[in-house]
Amino acid sequence: MPERRIILPGAKMPTAWYNIMADMPNKPAPYLHPGTQEPLTPDALTPIFPMSLIEQEVTQQRWVDMPGEVIDALLQYRTTPLIRALRLEQALGTPARIYYKFEGQSPTGSHKSNTAIAQAYYNKQAGMKRLATETGAGQWGTALCHACTTFGMDCTVYMVKVSFHQKPYRKTLMRLWGGEVFASPSEQTQAGRDVLAKDPDSLGSLGIAISEAVEDAATHADTNYALGSVLNHVLMHQTIIGLECLEQFDMVGDYPDVVFGCCGGGSNFGGLVFPFLGRKLRGEATKQTRFVGVEPAACPTLTRGEYRFDYGDVAKMTPLVMMYTLGHNFMPAGIHAGGLRYHGMSALVSQFVHEGDIEAIAYPQNPVFQAADLFAKTEGIVPAPESAHAIKGAMDEALRAKATGAETAILIGLSGHGFLDLGAYESYLDGKLVDFALPEDELCAALGELPEITL
Amino acid sequence: MPERRIILPGAKMPTAWYNIMADMPNKPAPYLHPGTQEPLTPDALTPIFPMSLIEQEVTQQRWVDMPGEVIDALLQYRTTPLIRALRLEQALGTPARIYYKFEGQSPTGSHKSNTAIAQAYYNKQAGMKRLATETGAGQWGTALCHACTTFGMDCTVYMVKVSFHQKPYRKTLMRLWGGEVFASPSEQTQAGRDVLAKDPDSLGSLGIAISEAVEDAATHADTNYALGSVLNHVLMHQTIIGLECLEQFDMVGDYPDVVFGCCGGGSNFGGLVFPFLGRKLRGEATKQTRFVGVEPAACPTLTRGEYRFDYGDVAKMTPLVMMYTLGHNFMPAGIHAGGLRYHGMSALVSQFVHEGDIEAIAYPQNPVFQAADLFAKTEGIVPAPESAHAIKGAMDEALRAKATGAETAILIGLSGHGFLDLGAYESYLDGKLVDFALPEDELCAALGELPEITL
Repeated sequence: MPERRIILPGAKMPTAWYNIMADMPNKPAPYLHPGTQEPLTPDALTPIFPMSLIEQEVTQQRWVDMPGEVIDALLQYRTTPLIRALRLEQALGTPARIYYKFEGQSPTGSHKSNTAIAQAYYNKQAGMKRLATETGAGQWGTALCHACTTFGMDCTVYMVKVSFHQKPYRKTLMRLWGGEVFASPSEQTQAGRDVLAKDPDSLGSLGIAISEAVEDAATHADTNYALGSVLNHVLMHQTIIGLECLEQFDMVGDYPDVVFGCCGGGSNFGGLVFPFLGRKLRGEATKQTRFVGVEPAACPTLTRGEYRFDYGDVAKMTPLVMMYTLGHNFMPAGIHAGGLRYHGMSALVSQFVHEGDIEAIAYPQNPVFQAADLFAKTEGIVPAPESAHAIKGAMDEALRAKATGAETAILIGLSGHGFLDLGAYESYLDGKLVDFALPEDELCAALGELPEITL
Repeated sequence: MPERRIILPGAKMPTAWYNIMADMPNKPAPYLHPGTQEPLTPDALTPIFPMSLIEQEVTQQRWVDMPGEVIDALLQYRTTPLIRALRLEQALGTPARIYYKFEGQSPTGSHKSNTAIAQAYYNKQAGMKRLATETGAGQWGTALCHACTTFGMDCTVYMVKVSFHQKPYRKTLMRLWGGEVFASPSEQTQAGRDVLAKDPDSLGSLGIAISEAVEDAATHADTNYALGSVLNHVLMHQTIIGLECLEQFDMVGDYPDVVFGCCGGGSNFGGLVFPFLGRKLRGEATKQTRFVGVEPAACPTLTRGEYRFDYGDVAKMTPLVMMYTLGHNFMPAGIHAGGLRYHGMSALVSQFVHEGDIEAIAYPQNPVFQAADLFAKTEGIVPAPESAHAIKGAMDEALRAKATGAETAILIGLSGHGFLDLGAYESYLDGKLVDFALPEDELCAALGELPEITL
């Protein structure tokens, strides 16, 4: 019987992050200033980010050492297991070997803590007393509250109003970790008040909540802003996932032929994939591994969006980023994978998709929950709805392997557990889950509002 | 820096359970037949239990080998980590070394899966197609549904009605693992109909739900009953917790001076403590370790109950057990640690308390949640309300060590996580948690209804 749980000893946890920009043949386009649309200077970001993270955003260094205090905080829940999905393989009757890297044992049950801890640390070092952020489904907000508590800081979270009311337990977790949580749009910021003036019943969106958090940080000297995905330094902090995986595959003498991760803003996906992709780019990989981002059909940024400059938020306060986007005014349908409801995508992931190094596919939510159901029954872990997208992609690959007899090695990024998403599973079991698709005219309308920019 | 997470490799997971009856100087009193009040013969249990488990209930063998299929199923989530609570120690400013054994990475987030898997396996071997059981807060019901799915069996759960409505997500989990869940008292059984006839609005109790599940099993040839705590074989299945701990302490060259576990029916506590206590009884222990059971002041079985024969259920269908009890008609107040709301206690744990080998203490729920709050802020794990009782006991011990300067090694049994108990934390944060105490007259009334039995 092959080893089920492949555990990397804590003493072997990676202590440097991997920066894929060092290995990219074509360097990424610069971020543009939201006002001038000129390439952004580091100074423009200092009101909301510490210089250490601004430097990490642009560094070309291949390896960035983790500070000792960050290593220490990560070791509280890491390393995370790489698990061979033997029962799932049996249930599918596939010759494929399926592995999943499980980030659900973090304090808040998802991969988000990996960067929350690093960001809280660097901000503390820079003298900040408080961090402000937005959260959609709540994973990022809870992770940042936990990280701030770890380093003795305060945390203010602008939580998309519809989630604030639908997911009260995420709010409880943030309160437990000392966080202050406002339903967004709120009366706390000008951005929030502007939205409420136009639409007092607004349910909010991630784009609006980002505007509120950025404004809060920009207008308070002791407060910075922290983003849970999309940015280069966030993806770099998440590479600990893929770096551990590399070691774990070494331990069992295997290597993935194909890797599936869910894609919202790209941090879980990039963190898992970049260490493998970097090996391939450097010509050091033993296999020509494929990398597949899986997204919801209701928010198909990579599969149906356009690759162009766009803002990260509704109020156009963030820099313009060259990325796949559905338009910053795009309002995704209310699917249960809240962490995947974002109009944009990491610039790095976007560029790799654009250049053909990474593939992307999209699924409606019912088949995704069916896959999650079988996974829970066989592997005994209830996946987060976001992570379930990667499982669905991997199961389809395993069934293709069954048809061809290929002994494919498949890696799934299982970014978190679903204990806080059981309302979604109840809807699924009751047959009440709606398979939202995005109509062509709605897609075109959202994209039609984008600025035309050529560098 | 001492090692934070002490991980026992899967290849070193114990493959035999420890049976403390082999090392008891005084053998336990027999169970008595509920009708005749005579010592129970194994035959009397065959309508609801397979012979393999009946034998495990009475065997005097010190070690019982785990079947290969059980080992395989356990390896899906085990071994579990022993974690040094460095940040908690720092926060308390104690010279004590605090360790916790964390069972929250099981499929359902508690230790219950350890015996659910074993029981489902033996029942499957005996030709059973279905298991019936009761559940209070829901941990046991979810664990048994998961285990039944693992071995291709059906599962029927009678869930205490008040929990059925208050904890809908536990029900979702059971459904996801293919279980059939009824609010108890139900119309499915005579026991349930009898209660409803007298009190149509009955909120149910664990005692009533047990009666329903036992009746279901006794009246269906293809169905057996499974109990999640109290019985000897259940505690034996849980000794994998303590056995792993022994190995893990060996790995870091330490050994506990005192062990704290929460006590509901005694399975988590016995599973953690018995391997250590057995060493002490055999004269093989390097330290005179103390063992402390922690229970809620609202259901103080060990600290205020009487040591005598009593039934395990309301309808008097179960055998009489020599144990600490508050009376089988005792109705505990609605505290959030639902897994500790039981009138009785494992016969083995009871006897050790009676003979002075194990201590017991009780706490109201507000100080317990305060301890859980500090634990979550420092260690990053939100504990189940049940487990938080053990944390509270350990924290008080650590503060005593601070006062005396003693470098005490403390072990906490962290039986599960609290992601499915966040409603309770919300009440705590809102200051709405009531510290129920048990009035003397109520206690006396419940005990006054007990049968007088002398062997």
